[in-house]
Amino acid sequence: MKRYTPTDKTRIRRLPKRAHYDVETINSILDSGFICHIGYTIGSQPFVTPTAYWREDDQVYWHGSHASRMLDEAANASVCLTVTHIDGLVIARSAFHHSINYRSVMVFGTPSKVEDESYKAQAMQRFVERMYPGQWETLRPITRKELKATTILHMKIDEASAKVRTGPPVDDEEDYALPIWAGVVPIEHGHAAPVPDARLTSGISRPSYLSSLAHIGLASRKSR
Amino acid sequence: MKRYTPTDKTRIRRLPKRAHYDVETINSILDSGFICHIGYTIGSQPFVTPTAYWREDDQVYWHGSHASRMLDEAANASVCLTVTHIDGLVIARSAFHHSINYRSVMVFGTPSKVEDESYKAQAMQRFVERMYPGQWETLRPITRKELKATTILHMKIDEASAKVRTGPPVDDEEDYALPIWAGVVPIEHGHAAPVPDARLTSGISRPSYLSSLAHIGLASRKSR
Repeated sequence: MKRYTPTDKTRIRRLPKRAHYDVETINSILDSGFICHIGYTIGSQPFVTPTAYWREDDQVYWHGSHASRMLDEAANASVCLTVTHIDGLVIARSAFHHSINYRSVMVFGTPSKVEDESYKAQAMQRFVERMYPGQWETLRPITRKELKATTILHMKIDEASAKVRTGPPVDDEEDYALPIWAGVVPIEHGHAAPVPDARLTSGISRPSYLSSLAHIGLASRKSR
Repeated sequence: MKRYTPTDKTRIRRLPKRAHYDVETINSILDSGFICHIGYTIGSQPFVTPTAYWREDDQVYWHGSHASRMLDEAANASVCLTVTHIDGLVIARSAFHHSINYRSVMVFGTPSKVEDESYKAQAMQRFVERMYPGQWETLRPITRKELKATTILHMKIDEASAKVRTGPPVDDEEDYALPIWAGVVPIEHGHAAPVPDARLTSGISRPSYLSSLAHIGLASRKSR
């Protein structure tokens, strides 16, 4: 099993049994979502910006406006990219043992801008196709001006670790006998029915790429 | 309307129409969730750690183990606390105008540890009661040893800004005539039915504090 070597940055000291360094676990968590939080510094001040991201091989990508301060500051600097999926509220018999079920990944590296225009166009296409498979060919084609206005960063995953908690509360042994409710409230992230734009031209049916968004962590659901 | 003064750190340059600096909007976003991403630095390396948080007045709080490196490094240092709610996928007629509906807040400040033991106990109670109103009195009481093992940080909100996108895609005017689907896929964060712990003593019914978790951003729902 391929794994990242734990380093001073990624070795998980607190609750090491929750730690994972294997590429399969890390990629699976990265590939289950589409929003990350990018940590970067300006001077000595940390900033944390949420943004959409995607992964290809051992690289993570994100993008934004050419005018984005975040992208300018993050490029060629040390960055931490964190992805977090919240899976459940863990309710114990004591407040101290309350917890949260989650899957998170921290990736460390030094991003750089994608400069080559044709590579940038391909990356944009792969980003769109990753979110909405089959959509790219249905869209109004991207223009050179739009590509110029877009900055894409890519970052080789130099160091990475995952932290995962699953399962029921773990109470003090003597507390299990207490008449106190404990358990897990599963958390689910989903989407409701797509809302067509009011200015849609007539006769356009909902595209098939919206039939499932489970690959980006969104189950199809309706309110109870 | 009370508002935070935009500063060099919080002034939103990109898409300033999405920016909000008023306390009401910022607090409402902070109060709609329970997981934030804390940005802090060790040396010049940024780290981004997801953790539970809560707000009281103009302070944000988070907690963790006494042994947590994050809490030690963040205390008395410059920190960025970011809260992000993802509300929808915005699908335009061109990839360039794809977007995401979201509400996010960035808070800047310098946290310090809550040292006073009785204040710490009160803060833990307020944290639990904020997540699960009415639960505290039903739990096995917190012990002095547990309080000693817990570190709570509090941080006055020195500077803060919110960024909000809502509504349909905004396409180039000439693209509205194209026969391409566009619209918004609403994203919903919810919870399924609580799963009682396998070791629950008999005769314990589901507590009333689980009847609604809407105040922390979780709708009650079932899969389609």
